[in-house]
Amino acid sequence: MAMSEIPHVVIVGGGFGGLNAALSLRSAPVRVTLIDRSNHHLFQPLLYQVATAGLAAPDIAAPIRRILRGQDNVTVLMGEVDDIDTAEKTVCFSGSEIPYDHLIVAVGAVNHWFGNDDWAAHAPGLKTIDDALDIRRRILVAFESAERATDPEEQSQWLTFAVVGGGPTGVELAGSIIEVATHALARDFRNFDTQRTKVILIEGGDRILPAFPEDLSQKARAQLAGLGVEVRTGSRVTDITAEGVRLGEELVAARTVLWGAGVKASPLLAALDVPLDRGGRVLVEPDLSIPGHPEVTVIGDAAALKQDDKWVPGVAPAATQGGQHVAGNIRRGLASKLPLPFRYTDKGSLATIGRRAAVADFGRLRFSGFFAWLLWMGVHVLFLIGFRNKAAVMMEWAWAYLTYQRSARVILR
Amino acid sequence: MAMSEIPHVVIVGGGFGGLNAALSLRSAPVRVTLIDRSNHHLFQPLLYQVATAGLAAPDIAAPIRRILRGQDNVTVLMGEVDDIDTAEKTVCFSGSEIPYDHLIVAVGAVNHWFGNDDWAAHAPGLKTIDDALDIRRRILVAFESAERATDPEEQSQWLTFAVVGGGPTGVELAGSIIEVATHALARDFRNFDTQRTKVILIEGGDRILPAFPEDLSQKARAQLAGLGVEVRTGSRVTDITAEGVRLGEELVAARTVLWGAGVKASPLLAALDVPLDRGGRVLVEPDLSIPGHPEVTVIGDAAALKQDDKWVPGVAPAATQGGQHVAGNIRRGLASKLPLPFRYTDKGSLATIGRRAAVADFGRLRFSGFFAWLLWMGVHVLFLIGFRNKAAVMMEWAWAYLTYQRSARVILR
Repeated sequence: MAMSEIPHVVIVGGGFGGLNAALSLRSAPVRVTLIDRSNHHLFQPLLYQVATAGLAAPDIAAPIRRILRGQDNVTVLMGEVDDIDTAEKTVCFSGSEIPYDHLIVAVGAVNHWFGNDDWAAHAPGLKTIDDALDIRRRILVAFESAERATDPEEQSQWLTFAVVGGGPTGVELAGSIIEVATHALARDFRNFDTQRTKVILIEGGDRILPAFPEDLSQKARAQLAGLGVEVRTGSRVTDITAEGVRLGEELVAARTVLWGAGVKASPLLAALDVPLDRGGRVLVEPDLSIPGHPEVTVIGDAAALKQDDKWVPGVAPAATQGGQHVAGNIRRGLASKLPLPFRYTDKGSLATIGRRAAVADFGRLRFSGFFAWLLWMGVHVLFLIGFRNKAAVMMEWAWAYLTYQRSARVILR
Repeated sequence: MAMSEIPHVVIVGGGFGGLNAALSLRSAPVRVTLIDRSNHHLFQPLLYQVATAGLAAPDIAAPIRRILRGQDNVTVLMGEVDDIDTAEKTVCFSGSEIPYDHLIVAVGAVNHWFGNDDWAAHAPGLKTIDDALDIRRRILVAFESAERATDPEEQSQWLTFAVVGGGPTGVELAGSIIEVATHALARDFRNFDTQRTKVILIEGGDRILPAFPEDLSQKARAQLAGLGVEVRTGSRVTDITAEGVRLGEELVAARTVLWGAGVKASPLLAALDVPLDRGGRVLVEPDLSIPGHPEVTVIGDAAALKQDDKWVPGVAPAATQGGQHVAGNIRRGLASKLPLPFRYTDKGSLATIGRRAAVADFGRLRFSGFFAWLLWMGVHVLFLIGFRNKAAVMMEWAWAYLTYQRSARVILR
């Protein structure tokens, strides 16, 4: 078989979906090209720990080509995909056109301020390593500014952190910031007491962690309150400025505001020229292909699929399973079999709140507190890519647990 | 004694000099304010390892206020010192004026392209963590670009790295880049063989590591050549552009050029209004004070002092000893004793070249190779600040040694 006769699978995106699609095509009779704009696969579930100075960036970012080095049928390219032409079956990449036989679109989501793009400058979101380092810088600089401030009111504003969005990202950020303030930084400043730090978690809906059962939402709220976080549900944000967050008439005066309230699917999906949902996601067929193009599939956060009348959630396991599924369907196609519909298996949900606090939801089995937290740590170390990263992160966590310290308190740029 | 009667020592800079001055004033009857533009003390001797993806930034950067948290007489402020007024005895900092009784200027050096500031964009220097992350990005992006390149000539240019300057920084960078290419990246690319990587070390003088004895320079050169680095001495750089380095008529076509050829003292020193040497350093008195102002001292890379007809070198031990010395003189002054002149004690020099290769100079005792490399590692771990950092760096090095891998291959921004 000549090189050009081997089917060419192009994967756009090296997150959980794209990476697992590539791994599942190991030893399949195809050539695979995986394209990502960054050089690393990012373990997003631990991104908030980079943002709150608990982990270093390399702890949770592994070079994609390093992960796939042993898989000879894969070529990894770093760069931006500018366009997709489903009629010509080409991907436009860095000025050249790459033809494909199968295209797997795993481009994920981007931060989204619901049409208020001017909020972005004051309330950064958390999707990339660079986002995390930016948030880390803002948090650490806020305390540095409080130390320098001579006006008590200005000092209080620097010591107030507003986190918008009561989903897992917002909960993790809020819990971590209060922990950093009350423990890691406790003795480091001379001109104020870090116990004065206020963290306010703002959620528009009537409870935090809305994807979890209601009793766990209540427990998470109690755990956050126990750490010292002020949780405000049913609070609609009307504006975000350099002064803080406006909730209708009220102004929450905070010099640091973080955004965990929303993402939307990547704008690249518009190039597919198929119907999108309100979140910009592609309304995919049951086998994750796009209407009219069985050779093009969309997986992970970029895909919108209903299963048993509920949307498949935008979580890492759904992306991983999607990647494995479309790889399986490509193998079936090569064996002249029809594609199978995708079924997401929910293996349970975990969310961490802070030191010794987390919630776990495994359907009938639900629990919270210390054991949920231990389980959260175990699962997250287990799924980290690379033995070195597992060992490094375990060491960081053991160190942080024993000393209450944060090891990555370095302000970059 | 009222607060205002306690003498106020202001230290500008939290490098080896400033930090050790502060530590040496522990339990002295003074108030100390340490100001630095960044929040961390940087272990500069290992900065090249961050630049070459061997270590993460937090491994070698410790928050200054964390180091000094237990020392109650020290306040740490992060920010830029804009001006110094030696007549009024004030430091101008972030718009406010801070009065001092004693001033220790430990502002170090900055990159310097000898009047060719347009070279800076093409040949970044290595002085800060951000410099290191920029260089890391350039090195890793060069290999990514080589993988994407379709023109073989362009590919060769991406695979050619020119390092300007044969001092320790240039030697470390050159040795590390060739090691990364031939080991860590060896199996990661599909469109070229990383063995094609060329690293060219360009030195204007007649030998590399000119601060070392001539026989060690020769050994270092042989070790670098053994790793695959092309060493070119007696080569004067006449221009640096996006195309590469021009040496008179010849062009070394390299898409990545790194600058290790020169630094000069911080421009802030001009504010002292005293004579500077050609490198911008203050020509200090024998006790490290400035002419006419015994209460102002300059230490580390910012100071120019001759001892036995040789300049005290701009190395970490000289800065450390300077900081300890001026702190000692402040204590003497409080006890109505006269200041002592500074004497630098040279405890020996080490430079690393690459895996299992280094040179060591302890006067009569000189050696090179594996044992010099082991000694280099031991000394550098020993002087790293913080138990966690020592443990983390030892783990990284053990991992790198056993696997030939680099753990920080993440491209930031």
